Amino acid sequence: MRRGLYEADHERYRESVREFVRREVVPNLERWDQQRMIDRATLAEAAKQGMYGLEIPERFGGGGETDYRYRLVVNEELSDAGATSLNMTFGLQDDLVLHYLIDLGDDEQHARWLPGFTNGEVIGALAMTEPGTGSDLRGMQTVAVPDGDGWRLTGQKTFISSGISADLVVVAARTGERGFGLFVVEAGMPGFARGRKLDKVGLHAQDTAELFFDDVAVPAANVLGNPGDGLRYLMAHLPRERLGVVASAYTGARAVFELTRRYCFERTAFGSRIGDFQHTRFELAEMATELDVAQAYLDKQVLAYNAGELTATDAAKSKWWVSELQKRVVDRCVQLHGGYGYMLEYPVARAFIDSRVQTIYAGTTEIMKELIGRELADQV
Amino acid sequence: MRRGLYEADHERYRESVREFVRREVVPNLERWDQQRMIDRATLAEAAKQGMYGLEIPERFGGGGETDYRYRLVVNEELSDAGATSLNMTFGLQDDLVLHYLIDLGDDEQHARWLPGFTNGEVIGALAMTEPGTGSDLRGMQTVAVPDGDGWRLTGQKTFISSGISADLVVVAARTGERGFGLFVVEAGMPGFARGRKLDKVGLHAQDTAELFFDDVAVPAANVLGNPGDGLRYLMAHLPRERLGVVASAYTGARAVFELTRRYCFERTAFGSRIGDFQHTRFELAEMATELDVAQAYLDKQVLAYNAGELTATDAAKSKWWVSELQKRVVDRCVQLHGGYGYMLEYPVARAFIDSRVQTIYAGTTEIMKELIGRELADQV
Amino acid sequence: MRRGLYEADHERYRESVREFVRREVVPNLERWDQQRMIDRATLAEAAKQGMYGLEIPERFGGGGETDYRYRLVVNEELSDAGATSLNMTFGLQDDLVLHYLIDLGDDEQHARWLPGFTNGEVIGALAMTEPGTGSDLRGMQTVAVPDGDGWRLTGQKTFISSGISADLVVVAARTGERGFGLFVVEAGMPGFARGRKLDKVGLHAQDTAELFFDDVAVPAANVLGNPGDGLRYLMAHLPRERLGVVASAYTGARAVFELTRRYCFERTAFGSRIGDFQHTRFELAEMATELDVAQAYLDKQVLAYNAGELTATDAAKSKWWVSELQKRVVDRCVQLHGGYGYMLEYPVARAFIDSRVQTIYAGTTEIMKELIGRELADQV
Amino acid sequence: MRRGLYEADHERYRESVREFVRREVVPNLERWDQQRMIDRATLAEAAKQGMYGLEIPERFGGGGETDYRYRLVVNEELSDAGATSLNMTFGLQDDLVLHYLIDLGDDEQHARWLPGFTNGEVIGALAMTEPGTGSDLRGMQTVAVPDGDGWRLTGQKTFISSGISADLVVVAARTGERGFGLFVVEAGMPGFARGRKLDKVGLHAQDTAELFFDDVAVPAANVLGNPGDGLRYLMAHLPRERLGVVASAYTGARAVFELTRRYCFERTAFGSRIGDFQHTRFELAEMATELDVAQAYLDKQVLAYNAGELTATDAAKSKWWVSELQKRVVDRCVQLHGGYGYMLEYPVARAFIDSRVQTIYAGTTEIMKELIGRELADQV
Repeated sequence: MRRGLYEADHERYRESVREFVRREVVPNLERWDQQRMIDRATLAEAAKQGMYGLEIPERFGGGGETDYRYRLVVNEELSDAGATSLNMTFGLQDDLVLHYLIDLGDDEQHARWLPGFTNGEVIGALAMTEPGTGSDLRGMQTVAVPDGDGWRLTGQKTFISSGISADLVVVAARTGERGFGLFVVEAGMPGFARGRKLDKVGLHAQDTAELFFDDVAVPAANVLGNPGDGLRYLMAHLPRERLGVVASAYTGARAVFELTRRYCFERTAFGSRIGDFQHTRFELAEMATELDVAQAYLDKQVLAYNAGELTATDAAKSKWWVSELQKRVVDRCVQLHGGYGYMLEYPVARAFIDSRVQTIYAGTTEIMKELIGRELADQV
Repeated sequence: MRRGLYEADHERYRESVREFVRREVVPNLERWDQQRMIDRATLAEAAKQGMYGLEIPERFGGGGETDYRYRLVVNEELSDAGATSLNMTFGLQDDLVLHYLIDLGDDEQHARWLPGFTNGEVIGALAMTEPGTGSDLRGMQTVAVPDGDGWRLTGQKTFISSGISADLVVVAARTGERGFGLFVVEAGMPGFARGRKLDKVGLHAQDTAELFFDDVAVPAANVLGNPGDGLRYLMAHLPRERLGVVASAYTGARAVFELTRRYCFERTAFGSRIGDFQHTRFELAEMATELDVAQAYLDKQVLAYNAGELTATDAAKSKWWVSELQKRVVDRCVQLHGGYGYMLEYPVARAFIDSRVQTIYAGTTEIMKELIGRELADQV
Repeated sequence: MRRGLYEADHERYRESVREFVRREVVPNLERWDQQRMIDRATLAEAAKQGMYGLEIPERFGGGGETDYRYRLVVNEELSDAGATSLNMTFGLQDDLVLHYLIDLGDDEQHARWLPGFTNGEVIGALAMTEPGTGSDLRGMQTVAVPDGDGWRLTGQKTFISSGISADLVVVAARTGERGFGLFVVEAGMPGFARGRKLDKVGLHAQDTAELFFDDVAVPAANVLGNPGDGLRYLMAHLPRERLGVVASAYTGARAVFELTRRYCFERTAFGSRIGDFQHTRFELAEMATELDVAQAYLDKQVLAYNAGELTATDAAKSKWWVSELQKRVVDRCVQLHGGYGYMLEYPVARAFIDSRVQTIYAGTTEIMKELIGRELADQV
Repeated sequence: MRRGLYEADHERYRESVREFVRREVVPNLERWDQQRMIDRATLAEAAKQGMYGLEIPERFGGGGETDYRYRLVVNEELSDAGATSLNMTFGLQDDLVLHYLIDLGDDEQHARWLPGFTNGEVIGALAMTEPGTGSDLRGMQTVAVPDGDGWRLTGQKTFISSGISADLVVVAARTGERGFGLFVVEAGMPGFARGRKLDKVGLHAQDTAELFFDDVAVPAANVLGNPGDGLRYLMAHLPRERLGVVASAYTGARAVFELTRRYCFERTAFGSRIGDFQHTRFELAEMATELDVAQAYLDKQVLAYNAGELTATDAAKSKWWVSELQKRVVDRCVQLHGGYGYMLEYPVARAFIDSRVQTIYAGTTEIMKELIGRELADQV
């Protein structure tokens, strides 16, 4: 059964991504994990070569390409290389920061910020989550109070991906009783401080941090859209945020499955290839099936996204289901590796520690089910 | 997210199916279960109105319509009505018996048999499985030995759907050391006898039986294709056989889910609608998600089948996964019904007893995994 | 590892149970299922021989034996024989009706009712559940209003096991704003009527029914304990009610496992015994393990019950876990039987339809988890 | 329901363990993880205070205490403190190295080695696994060839816990066509070299290594038992090896559950304590139940071990079931922690990376099922 998703242009783009990964990524992966940071030079090079930021309009040096299949190609190639932290960084830029900036920014903001992303000089972050609130935006404590033409921001955020390296942070802050807005805080603004780099289970090359905002003066020109419409903006951008996790989850799971399949037919035990034991055969068959099923669903969602028809609830369904599938697949692949699955020199072990957060961030599995279930109730 | 599978013609056809179901099926369902047999008159009427047999060429009175989406429409409407035994009977005719007869029959055979299916005078059955062999065709004991121009058939088959009512049975019989052929045995042929109607867990309106062949003389004109090519024919027809189960499994699961969802918001316990408990919400959300995922995969397979690109392995993947999904969904829906889920007057209880065989016939889940796993080994 | 639960007296008792089962039960099982009722003569004989009612004090003709291990012996022997409906009937008498009557009845009531149970002339039922309330006792609609020395009872109950055959029914009825009482309604009391026998998925020899109470005059002598203390009585009797289900669930699962294990080594497919395939080996190993685990937990609870130390929460834990285990085991055993697992002549198929209610009645799995979870919250 | 396992002596011992943990372990845990090694001084102190080595006969300075319940106390206290690597090290000494040395060593060997364990000067390791063989002892490549009175050992071992720090290693080496023996290799013997410390997913304070034996001269006095009886010795010591993993798995899972339960009632989201959401309540209830079930099974096995009645198959059952339970529990607890579950400063995150190996070493889940399944076949 042909997949039938990609066209010739996507495959040409894949070649360039593959070449970039081979030359710039693979040789550095281990070092990035050890230094707990991806080289900025690599990110800059990636931006220039269109590994991310492809959607930035051409007048700001980007590709103006909104077809999400290109993003899926990047996910596939980086997942195959085990470059999970890098893939997540690209996703953060494309599916979150740039998605907000391009959609909500006005011409002046676009002209000011987008070129920096195009040439890789600027890395962005998105600051929503706060200690003690998790996915619950109603509990947000960070506040923005009007001050002359601008605003003054005070509060604290946590679990911020690229929080250490980001030059520009889109911060959600409460602007009234119920509403909140999106404020662009830039590196160097007085009162903006970064906390310690958080020590995570995996994704070691990703710098995740707490951010502190102590009466930061944010000019009106740094407000995205209307200051009270944050919730509406957030809702509008959820489909893509979730789709981004789904893309990385599917491609990550598929990659681990493929290397495990090869492992099972290279390694022998008790006189047979591991893959020739019926139990292994069933394990592989189950994973192969579920990955094909997930692919059909993902591809359908990608095309729906391209057509502007992917709803937040549809994306919630794939978010939890595919990320849970990834967790299951990775765990089973670890087990099939036996003792080697516990050794970090094996990619499957890195996948184990890197992927565990997928069912948690961008809305936990439980939050997704809650939202889906509520819509089912409303439809009665 | 739009489903995007059907076109206007399918929806028009759906109207006619729905009308047929409303008028001819729903009022009789309980009676058919009790009498352990569907009325022949209903089957005849269904054939005449194109509820099945749509693929029979126009010159034999059929619709000549090979688009599988019409079959999916029938599955949806019958599953929504809880007409599981009837749906299975239609599937048996279309996805198995007619699929073989149309593909393998020659002009003379077509002219002799197909009109009977078109006007509903003939019901067919397919006899593969034997006591003691299950899915293992190599263990087949039924033999066909040459006798003049024809053959003489001796053996026993079991679990034959519509075995009591069938006028025409396609029988697999060993013709040599390794090969087997497909022989059309017709009601009334000397030596052909039917055993007792088997008492099954569910599918009570389906007459399942053992069949006995005691030196049955089968003329050469009743051999389908070449007498030694049975295995090849079987392999070629597996994708559709499996797809047929998948169609009934998906639509059956979806139907039970929908009625359960309604139940959960009609019924109250502890002062709330059942559906307002978080546990129920999660249950419904999980099922809604998995059904959407399954639908994407099924639809892709239907279009691949239409395009002649659905492989036996692809269909094996959906066969086990969707039938296992149906089992899970039905079981969870029974549980959500509480005590009512155990009472046969509730459709969910009938679904429970009717659906349990779906992971077993047409190749058990285990056989499917075995086949998928072997192909994964071959691809290394 | 020795089980270490039973002593010589239990094994002697087992011999008598086994003999009773061999002579009185096995030859009649199929007929009872077909007539949808167990022969009253068999129940009477069982009572006389101490198959149930062992706990009735000696002065009323019983054994005065409160050691629950004897009940477990009965469960084991009846489960091994596939006598599920009979086992449930014994459980209903011993773990519910007699448990209440013996504990709450006064001397006069004991003298009036217990001898009938001893000689098997009286069968009891317990009527708690109402249409539209399920496990939610706060929603109870059946009311008892004082009338002279006695009460007048009005309401409706459903899912009442032995509802058709019961001579004596312990009925819960609301006696005030919040409280309810337990009233003994006897066959023939004016206003007491039985509804139709409910058509269930399985347990066909069990007569389950709706009961109607239309202004039934219940004399004060037929009130158990205090009329407003029903909830307290109910709570006190839950451990044993739940333990009864656990006993039947464990022994039922074990019996199906054992017959399936034998089947797997008798039947061949693809040239091997089914049990020699690694997948089957793993299935059997997993079930054997979980059954051993369940046995250790059950045995511990039985001894705790004997010592008066089994709490309702402990019993809730085993109720849901062991009944869910039974469901899993039975389902897997059906699958291992292939097509035969769907044929009612095979005991595994009967187990499939008989056992599905175990996670539902006596408090659904969900109710059990709710209760356990609340206690965990209270302990913080 | 009382647990009923421990007596007063065990609780007195628990106090001393708890005090040791509070004073010597807790303040150092993080540092040990960072330095990838437990301080030798702590191990020495632990030995002197009887935290391990309790079974060493009194004449060699030990406690001569063979009651396994003391080992369970140690497991409970170390698991509660999150001291997983230390617990594993104690287990390695007691359940493996000393178990072999005490059972198989002769008087001279006892006198030579055991005092070193008693005062903590000697740490042992066990070297079975080889690269490319895993659990398959028949594929063992390390050989011992007779050389005068002694033997010369050549080969390579991997995944050796305490491989870097061990002063004494019990090495399995092939001594003939089919047999193998157990040889004690001591630090400093020429030809014995240690490879790099393996970089594991977790258990960072545990030094796991490859070991190399290049024509190492092992005197006859360093052979344990008969040189050809290794397989028999191994089989005899499996019950305890497996029980050791079960003890750590159960206590590890219980500890993570308890801290998560507390977390769920301390942390709020959407205006409620997390533990007050029904989904959380069900999660906690399910885990609480399964832990109680596991405890009953473990306790039964501990008493059976004490009585010399625990078979290798019984221990295989608990090995896979309880270690898989631990995996499930830890994973669910991570999820309940949300983003904090991915931060290593939270004990649940450390448990996630530390525990993943439990279903792998000491015989994978798959090996256990294979063995159990074979015995089920043999019993037919």
